[in-house]
Amino acid sequence: MKSIGYGGDYNPEQWPREVWDQDYAAFELANINTLTVGVFAWAHLQPAEDRYDFTMLDATVERAAAEGKNIVLATPSGAMPPWLAHKYPEACRVDFEGRRHVYGQRHNACPSNPDFRRLAVELADKLAQRYGDIPAIVAWHVGNEYGGACYCPQCAAAFRDWLKKRYDGFDRLNAAWNTTFWSHTFTDWDQIQPPTALSEHWRGPGHTAFQGITLDYKRFMSDALLDGFVAEKAAIRGHVPHTPVTTNFMGLYQPIDYHRWASHLDFVSWDNYPPEDPSASRTAARMALAHGLVRGLRGGDPFWVMEQTPSVTACRDVNSVKRPGVLRLWSWQSVAHGADAVLYFQMRQARGACEKYHGAVLDHAGRTDTRVFREVAALGGEFHQVGDMLLGARTPARVALLVDWDSWWALEMSDGPNRNVGYINVLTAYHRTLWQANALVDVVPVTADLSGYDVVVAPLLHMVKGDFADRVTALVESGGSFVTTALSGRVDEDDNAFLVDVPGPFAALLGLRVEETDAQQPDVTNPVTLADGRVSDSRHVFEVIIPDEATEVHGTYSADFYAGTPAVTRARRGQGSAWYVGTLLDDDGVEAIIRTVLDEHDLTGPLADVRDVEAVERVSPDGTRYLFVLNHTGATRVTRSPVDGDDLLSGRDLSAGDELVLEPADVLVVRCR
Amino acid sequence: MKSIGYGGDYNPEQWPREVWDQDYAAFELANINTLTVGVFAWAHLQPAEDRYDFTMLDATVERAAAEGKNIVLATPSGAMPPWLAHKYPEACRVDFEGRRHVYGQRHNACPSNPDFRRLAVELADKLAQRYGDIPAIVAWHVGNEYGGACYCPQCAAAFRDWLKKRYDGFDRLNAAWNTTFWSHTFTDWDQIQPPTALSEHWRGPGHTAFQGITLDYKRFMSDALLDGFVAEKAAIRGHVPHTPVTTNFMGLYQPIDYHRWASHLDFVSWDNYPPEDPSASRTAARMALAHGLVRGLRGGDPFWVMEQTPSVTACRDVNSVKRPGVLRLWSWQSVAHGADAVLYFQMRQARGACEKYHGAVLDHAGRTDTRVFREVAALGGEFHQVGDMLLGARTPARVALLVDWDSWWALEMSDGPNRNVGYINVLTAYHRTLWQANALVDVVPVTADLSGYDVVVAPLLHMVKGDFADRVTALVESGGSFVTTALSGRVDEDDNAFLVDVPGPFAALLGLRVEETDAQQPDVTNPVTLADGRVSDSRHVFEVIIPDEATEVHGTYSADFYAGTPAVTRARRGQGSAWYVGTLLDDDGVEAIIRTVLDEHDLTGPLADVRDVEAVERVSPDGTRYLFVLNHTGATRVTRSPVDGDDLLSGRDLSAGDELVLEPADVLVVRCR
Amino acid sequence: MKSIGYGGDYNPEQWPREVWDQDYAAFELANINTLTVGVFAWAHLQPAEDRYDFTMLDATVERAAAEGKNIVLATPSGAMPPWLAHKYPEACRVDFEGRRHVYGQRHNACPSNPDFRRLAVELADKLAQRYGDIPAIVAWHVGNEYGGACYCPQCAAAFRDWLKKRYDGFDRLNAAWNTTFWSHTFTDWDQIQPPTALSEHWRGPGHTAFQGITLDYKRFMSDALLDGFVAEKAAIRGHVPHTPVTTNFMGLYQPIDYHRWASHLDFVSWDNYPPEDPSASRTAARMALAHGLVRGLRGGDPFWVMEQTPSVTACRDVNSVKRPGVLRLWSWQSVAHGADAVLYFQMRQARGACEKYHGAVLDHAGRTDTRVFREVAALGGEFHQVGDMLLGARTPARVALLVDWDSWWALEMSDGPNRNVGYINVLTAYHRTLWQANALVDVVPVTADLSGYDVVVAPLLHMVKGDFADRVTALVESGGSFVTTALSGRVDEDDNAFLVDVPGPFAALLGLRVEETDAQQPDVTNPVTLADGRVSDSRHVFEVIIPDEATEVHGTYSADFYAGTPAVTRARRGQGSAWYVGTLLDDDGVEAIIRTVLDEHDLTGPLADVRDVEAVERVSPDGTRYLFVLNHTGATRVTRSPVDGDDLLSGRDLSAGDELVLEPADVLVVRCR
Repeated sequence: MKSIGYGGDYNPEQWPREVWDQDYAAFELANINTLTVGVFAWAHLQPAEDRYDFTMLDATVERAAAEGKNIVLATPSGAMPPWLAHKYPEACRVDFEGRRHVYGQRHNACPSNPDFRRLAVELADKLAQRYGDIPAIVAWHVGNEYGGACYCPQCAAAFRDWLKKRYDGFDRLNAAWNTTFWSHTFTDWDQIQPPTALSEHWRGPGHTAFQGITLDYKRFMSDALLDGFVAEKAAIRGHVPHTPVTTNFMGLYQPIDYHRWASHLDFVSWDNYPPEDPSASRTAARMALAHGLVRGLRGGDPFWVMEQTPSVTACRDVNSVKRPGVLRLWSWQSVAHGADAVLYFQMRQARGACEKYHGAVLDHAGRTDTRVFREVAALGGEFHQVGDMLLGARTPARVALLVDWDSWWALEMSDGPNRNVGYINVLTAYHRTLWQANALVDVVPVTADLSGYDVVVAPLLHMVKGDFADRVTALVESGGSFVTTALSGRVDEDDNAFLVDVPGPFAALLGLRVEETDAQQPDVTNPVTLADGRVSDSRHVFEVIIPDEATEVHGTYSADFYAGTPAVTRARRGQGSAWYVGTLLDDDGVEAIIRTVLDEHDLTGPLADVRDVEAVERVSPDGTRYLFVLNHTGATRVTRSPVDGDDLLSGRDLSAGDELVLEPADVLVVRCR
Repeated sequence: MKSIGYGGDYNPEQWPREVWDQDYAAFELANINTLTVGVFAWAHLQPAEDRYDFTMLDATVERAAAEGKNIVLATPSGAMPPWLAHKYPEACRVDFEGRRHVYGQRHNACPSNPDFRRLAVELADKLAQRYGDIPAIVAWHVGNEYGGACYCPQCAAAFRDWLKKRYDGFDRLNAAWNTTFWSHTFTDWDQIQPPTALSEHWRGPGHTAFQGITLDYKRFMSDALLDGFVAEKAAIRGHVPHTPVTTNFMGLYQPIDYHRWASHLDFVSWDNYPPEDPSASRTAARMALAHGLVRGLRGGDPFWVMEQTPSVTACRDVNSVKRPGVLRLWSWQSVAHGADAVLYFQMRQARGACEKYHGAVLDHAGRTDTRVFREVAALGGEFHQVGDMLLGARTPARVALLVDWDSWWALEMSDGPNRNVGYINVLTAYHRTLWQANALVDVVPVTADLSGYDVVVAPLLHMVKGDFADRVTALVESGGSFVTTALSGRVDEDDNAFLVDVPGPFAALLGLRVEETDAQQPDVTNPVTLADGRVSDSRHVFEVIIPDEATEVHGTYSADFYAGTPAVTRARRGQGSAWYVGTLLDDDGVEAIIRTVLDEHDLTGPLADVRDVEAVERVSPDGTRYLFVLNHTGATRVTRSPVDGDDLLSGRDLSAGDELVLEPADVLVVRCR
Repeated sequence: MKSIGYGGDYNPEQWPREVWDQDYAAFELANINTLTVGVFAWAHLQPAEDRYDFTMLDATVERAAAEGKNIVLATPSGAMPPWLAHKYPEACRVDFEGRRHVYGQRHNACPSNPDFRRLAVELADKLAQRYGDIPAIVAWHVGNEYGGACYCPQCAAAFRDWLKKRYDGFDRLNAAWNTTFWSHTFTDWDQIQPPTALSEHWRGPGHTAFQGITLDYKRFMSDALLDGFVAEKAAIRGHVPHTPVTTNFMGLYQPIDYHRWASHLDFVSWDNYPPEDPSASRTAARMALAHGLVRGLRGGDPFWVMEQTPSVTACRDVNSVKRPGVLRLWSWQSVAHGADAVLYFQMRQARGACEKYHGAVLDHAGRTDTRVFREVAALGGEFHQVGDMLLGARTPARVALLVDWDSWWALEMSDGPNRNVGYINVLTAYHRTLWQANALVDVVPVTADLSGYDVVVAPLLHMVKGDFADRVTALVESGGSFVTTALSGRVDEDDNAFLVDVPGPFAALLGLRVEETDAQQPDVTNPVTLADGRVSDSRHVFEVIIPDEATEVHGTYSADFYAGTPAVTRARRGQGSAWYVGTLLDDDGVEAIIRTVLDEHDLTGPLADVRDVEAVERVSPDGTRYLFVLNHTGATRVTRSPVDGDDLLSGRDLSAGDELVLEPADVLVVRCR
């Protein structure tokens, strides 16, 4: 591609042909260069099992290619047509309540159903065969927003097969699931049921009697859905040897372990719909985290934002419009964190059904004189102006933030100590302090090579797998800093407790043992006095820590029977340090600790003293550094340029120390000298 | 009838015969003249499919007739007997969750089940044959409180038949439902499933992926239930040529479109159980709205209150007693709004089961020396004293408030912009201002002839059907005022967006287009400065309006990026005006606008300056005007009589300007001179 | 036994043999003398239907016996093994929503399933045969925490059989259920369905259309579960003629009527897991109530605490640790109220599944140098020191507090007057005032012999059965005091209203009738002025009382239309008094009335003026009085000894009047002279 990908989902089949001309005229106005076509097209591509009809897609692809657009061609398996569900009722899922669904909605196919699989793969094959040679197609897009789960008998059978591969017989399986508890010893594969409201669960998907069973089912289901992607990709590869294949992820999406998926995609893309949050900076930080996660899936490679809305969503209780400048700000933030394409859902607003009020580049009346279209077009102009300069650029991070789906799952389905501890809440709290510090952060799995980092932050690393403890110890010995928190180091890969002092494999590194874990209602706080005298409230969980003699205490509880005992510790090991935060500190407490660590490694970024102004760097393949400065506040912020360079958007030539007046939602992209 | 109908549901079959004498003695004390019998009597009328037993009903009817009471004879189809459900399990419904129910409760028969239909009609036929000639029977009452929905395979088949009639083949159906979206193109009738938690719905009945399917199912289900009524009525008409047939409606009841039903009833009746509301005036206004709706169902004809409680309900979480005087106040309010009968559920309190604590004229001990009985008897005395003077009187309203079930349904199942917008909340807010102004209001469907009105108020008219926009334009051109609100004019009869500027067919009349619709959480307000300088908060939705040049701005937003832009507009067209309120104003804002409109047409009613005192007029067939004055406050209010006349209740002779001292809950019924 | 039983659930099968030695070493340190084994052992005792394996249990029992421990041998029917559910799917329950469950969790067997019953009984038989002669076994423990309900076709059939026995044909059944209401007359047993979400219930288990059906199903289900216990007990008795048999109850557990069960147990035991409550004294009072209930099940006999946690639970949202001293305090409270054994769940912490974070005597690391282990061991030392002195001691109470499951059920499933009235809330409110007064209280069923009591307190005695009214009248006539409340005396054993004035059979005794029952939202209060001038808020229900002439008014409403009318009355009858509290008073109001009554009978206990300090007496078989003093506050309380004696724990010699300095959580066990 010659510049940042810009465009989005385009479904001209929903409109009469005469509208198409209007569409392309508008695309020109907005410098749209990329169109995703074919998502949800199954019903017209294959009106019956024995009948295909490519008329509409042919016309769509022809026109798009003729107009010089990059095409992302989607397989339509994200939504099956009515005839399929009617003919093969078992292609519909059985839900967590044990109910077989019938036709409706989308993203609803059983991943284990052979008919659905066969039909999806056949259609992918046909599409690849027909369109595989078209040069305008820059990427293939399989399915859509994979997710959810099925609990049908076919999935039960597939789960048993998956377990047979994972466990070498019943002894290992029964040990993994600790089945001696509550008389659950399994002696025949057919005795094993998917964990649902009708078997192991009480009070919903988060409450299971046997965490091990539910955990394995989550792993299995993630893999089962992946199998569908892999099968379609293989069909495409039968005809298309090189064009990259992707699917659109959903960022911090709990049901799917994207780390199990990432190696199967040629590049990663995701849909950026941040949850509503009255705090603009929390929203910005959360998007930064998700971008970082996505970028971390494939070792720092650039990714695509496959979807974002030009203004409103529709599926929420309250769907507010994006304020003036926000679309531009968030789009450039995507690029700042590694996106090589920023696409919309959708190019033209659907007329009916549940997304008729979802925003689009073109509204129901097709106007181009609206505020939203004007902002879309202006951004297109900026992307066009920047061209290919930023493509392929990478983030030179020396801080790693660890995300681990197994820990996320295990922690949130754990009975005890405290259901009010949310993995994402704590993860985002730690990330926000890194973000406020404008530290460059890679968000990586526990299997990532840690040797390139100076600082590794691992909140709520509940489960410790493989040689992780050894690797992080090596990092610390050689001068790195490791920060982890309460509820880390509790269970092994099977979710069984380590039969040693808490925090298990980390105890030696951290130089302490946790003797008790207190929990309190959300309104109870225990002020923690930090080493520098500052006091920060802690809440939810309060670990009673017995430190080794050499371990430094960096924070102490001030209330309850453990008043005066350590809440935060630091153990010096070799050249480095291992930090432990034995409770959930409020943001200011987390920030105090993280800043101390970053400062010691000189990793606090530029403009870190300007609250809610983000400064992020990307380095292009030719070594040029680009500094993105993003004002996420609603106010003007005045500071000084940290670099010499020229701002690609305003054309202004900057020297380090020049005054920078950042208007609300302002964006700078400084090519550094 | 010779006076206002007074009495209620009477089930002597629940009691030994010796109690009957007590009952009638008490009825005499209270001037009870009307008894509804036979509701829920199926089990003893037909103890088995092949056996009927009219002994009890014969005795009941004979006695009531002998005592000179008007009889309302009910068919018992509101609750089937156990043997029926046991023999025909498919007579029980399948619920929204897809679960087939078994025997229990009431109002639970599948409307599409042929066995239930046959048995209900046969029994109605038998009743009509046996009792059709009895002169004491003044009305027939079919079933009871029709409502709810069934989603069984029989209903699915009936739905498909209904669709075949509605749509001329799949092209029209697929267009109506916009099935190209999400690959839903239907190609066979059997592919169509009722919209349930197992098909199109997520997060409950209000959240559907395909609004068009759910909307049509609601229409179908309303019609399917109506079919049952129509079939029983036809059976009755086979033997009873003239006695009117009705069923009891439930006022502002969302599941049934009473406008689809009204023409099939000979007169309308309804059950008045207002929801608990700490505000007495809100409750009073809401009852007035419901009375108006019911009266509007058949062009302003008088109606019956078929049920109200003498004091307490039982089915609510908290069931408070009616305070002293409230029973009288509310009963006279019913008459003021057009009721020719005011009946109770129930004459004697049930001994067991779920209504054993529901209030009754006679309590478990059968006492007549209780506060409640005394109030019942005193009211009976007043009704008796007034005689037939008010029967058949009509309301000379020149204001129309529009209610549209399709808009109600479409709006509340819409994804976006804001789930916190409730149709009834906004409808009642606009109605309350009319009610506070003591304007006489007809509550009518969008198909009503508007030519007789000066003012038409249409809050949240989300869907615009047929020639409505033309008719309302004609009204305005000829001098009328039209008031509508945000979220009106959005979709056509199929719930598809109009492919023109919002608000679609109203845009020209209103002289504006809506470019964006912002939505905010309930705690966010945007103060709107009105033309007269007053400021009223707005919330939930905020439409960004681009007015035509000639359109007058009567209110502007004062916050957010659309501060200073229009929130309320007025377009002058011909002799009249079209008002648009592009946000949801708080009550004071709505009142400011509505009063302006009413005043311009001189339609503000008498005593409008006395807060929470209602003044309503009715005109009897002989042209006599009756003014009802109702003090809904807990305080004494002093004002002056707006008319010359005599108060039928106190006998006082009034001249306009005389001081009126209205005690709490006071009622005047002034026959005007 | 030679001293208070001390120990708990021990599942060595979950651990390698080498751990066992550690276990017993730790048991020695903590004076553990009692081990419960075999709970949940089914899967290893019977790995397949035709195969038994007692190897593990043999070793466990042998070792425990060799170590000199008392053994409680459990049958494992609390959790069936996978093979059983797989082979007999109908052994799994059908839930309230009508869904058949599959294998999972525990406590999930259908009580009517013949295969489960047969297999459970066979295994109990085998266990009794094998281990019946072992002298170390001091008790047999059948199943575990019986509870829940099944609604399957087998249970439906069993319910019909139960009904056939209860009712002499359909006339009686239809009358009991008042089926004439809503056409429910049953004419065939097969028409009767379990009351579920698919039949009579709406909005969950508490909302039924026919209270009588649901009430009978609750009674039936309690009996059906009891049948399982009885059958296993019979099998044990086939081999074990004398060793007592029990099962562990759950205190104030609504689903099971323990009064229907108690006579079938040889002694009662229960599991003490008080709900989290920020108020320590409310928690303490609630435990006291539960202890009293359990002790009252078998006429005051000592009971066992079969389970409590050494520190944390795991199944709650928030699981806090027991603060220092609390374990000791609560354990001694158990003994103070009649426990002869105080056991833990569990001896060693489970490694995996849903109780891996539930507290244990030994944690995952097996440490004995933790705070929790130290407290466990110290308490064991105290119990050891006290020896057998307290065994068999009884509580010389002269106050009876009535608990009635039928009233509990009937009240909480009643439609009207107020769903916010919780039986336990009111019961505990009345109990708390008795507890604060340190009155000795027996908690007994309505069938208990009342002649031994001076005061009988019966809050919310909604249902009046048998000759209760006569017996309580006799008590009052002979000098006793009876206190009852609003909503008492409303229904007969079938939940049908009495066809006389409220409160039915109590009206004559109380000297009043209730004419109306008002209900209000929780935020509405009506201050009641008591006889002594104090004012206490009342809320939820407000009965309008018409007192007889001689009835004394002890409290009057001060608001609403019944202001100035009686809220609290006292009727003097013979030598005694009958008190009626016609509303729900706040705690201070309840306390004012209860203290008046206690004081009149000189039943206020020692130290009643020291808030939240409990003083309880037990009298050993040899007539020695023991006074337990328990400081439930977090503060030091200074008072004076009410008795002469020696404190068994500190060894201090006390004379009446000596200063007592009670530290937080302090415990005294004074052997009185």
